[in-house]
Amino acid sequence: MTARPAFGGIEAGGTKWVCGLTDERGDLVATDVIPTTTPDETLGRAVRFFAGHETIRAIGVGSFGPLDLDPASPTHGSITTTPKPDWSDTDLLSPLRQAVGVPIALDTDVNAAALGEWRHVAGAGLHSLCYITVGTGIGAGAVVGGRLLHGSGHLEFGHLRIPHDTARDPFPGSCPHHGDCLEGLASGEALRHRWGRPAEDLDDPAVWHLEAEYLAHAIANAAYALAPQRVIVGGGVAQHPALLPRLRERLARDALRQQAVVTW
Amino acid sequence: MTARPAFGGIEAGGTKWVCGLTDERGDLVATDVIPTTTPDETLGRAVRFFAGHETIRAIGVGSFGPLDLDPASPTHGSITTTPKPDWSDTDLLSPLRQAVGVPIALDTDVNAAALGEWRHVAGAGLHSLCYITVGTGIGAGAVVGGRLLHGSGHLEFGHLRIPHDTARDPFPGSCPHHGDCLEGLASGEALRHRWGRPAEDLDDPAVWHLEAEYLAHAIANAAYALAPQRVIVGGGVAQHPALLPRLRERLARDALRQQAVVTW
Repeated sequence: MTARPAFGGIEAGGTKWVCGLTDERGDLVATDVIPTTTPDETLGRAVRFFAGHETIRAIGVGSFGPLDLDPASPTHGSITTTPKPDWSDTDLLSPLRQAVGVPIALDTDVNAAALGEWRHVAGAGLHSLCYITVGTGIGAGAVVGGRLLHGSGHLEFGHLRIPHDTARDPFPGSCPHHGDCLEGLASGEALRHRWGRPAEDLDDPAVWHLEAEYLAHAIANAAYALAPQRVIVGGGVAQHPALLPRLRERLARDALRQQAVVTW
Repeated sequence: MTARPAFGGIEAGGTKWVCGLTDERGDLVATDVIPTTTPDETLGRAVRFFAGHETIRAIGVGSFGPLDLDPASPTHGSITTTPKPDWSDTDLLSPLRQAVGVPIALDTDVNAAALGEWRHVAGAGLHSLCYITVGTGIGAGAVVGGRLLHGSGHLEFGHLRIPHDTARDPFPGSCPHHGDCLEGLASGEALRHRWGRPAEDLDDPAVWHLEAEYLAHAIANAAYALAPQRVIVGGGVAQHPALLPRLRERLARDALRQQAVVTW
């Protein structure tokens, strides 16, 4: 390591944890990728990554959830009830705090991504944006008036109700709670259920025409409900090369105001 | 007038302007209702209502729009382009400022309502809420983190895209831009077009069953996109007594979290 680490970060995902250290300027000086196994093992490896670097001043953690983010709660900083085996009620912060005595900030993975886009990437210089991730599931984070939106718990953007023409698309949707909500129609999981293969293997233009239709509805609803200066779309499914041109065409056709810009 | 007026307010609507003066405690001490005719006549009567009260310290104006609310704009404080004859490019603030030399705040009618609900009524004590008005049109204002949400212009909540089962409801929607967006399906204007009579004259339970379905979608989308602690529904159409019980039932059926409370 050539530079003294100043800041730490963890992208705590359900498959892997990506840990990083940056210098004062925010340039990465070290990373580690840890497979998400048991909480003890995974947190133990993360702790070992950060421990001993006495120049670290703060650590930011963006985690899969749901999370208890209420500072007044006795279980603040924990994953609450997750279908992921062993991870319900996992205290994410205490092991890190004990090992590294610096301020640690925790937020959802998608809020952390929204914050990152706002500070450094496609949202730099704006006062409001909405970041939508389209991967296995669909989630969103928003910056409003220069602050991350924290309402009553997380945004549950994936459950937006959108138009679904069952004559053209008879797929009933894959959401166990709502059937054909946004996530039930347009997530990677939905694509896999509807077309029988994962998103990256789907090349039929009809697949991406339909996907663009649903995501355009989602972007429109984000624009109408949040009035962001920009909508940023990320996530694995959104990166399929067939999607972006169709999505731009669809947004233009729907006469969406300029605020609904899609960038990666 | 028994008390010295301290604060002034205008609800500037397309049909009438309601002007009021309150004492220090916020209790009304005088009101006037002015028909909305030409800008000169209407603003002239409003100016005469407030002029001469030298104890007034500030005036708040909630107006129909669209409004130019950008403080950096040379036309800040004006109605921009409205279909209402004579009112496009009307400077709302200068005549008041010239007559009454006190600070004047301007926002949209629905943001003013959201602010009022938050400060004094159904949203008191909360840090986030969404206020939806269902009248001739549909609009919304939101408080996020203890501040009115001002993104890129106004919320255009009325244009939310929601599910529309055309087999059950073949009405194509009344929105000139989107057809069957929320406003096109559920506003007072939509009800009048679909059923041939104004909302207050509609007593068929099927009318209100359908209306509750569409408004439940809108409330769900507000909850999913903004995560407010409470959703407050107001406006003339929403006050029909047949609506609220059906809406509550529908929200419960959709398993909406407790944040989506409906109050009037």
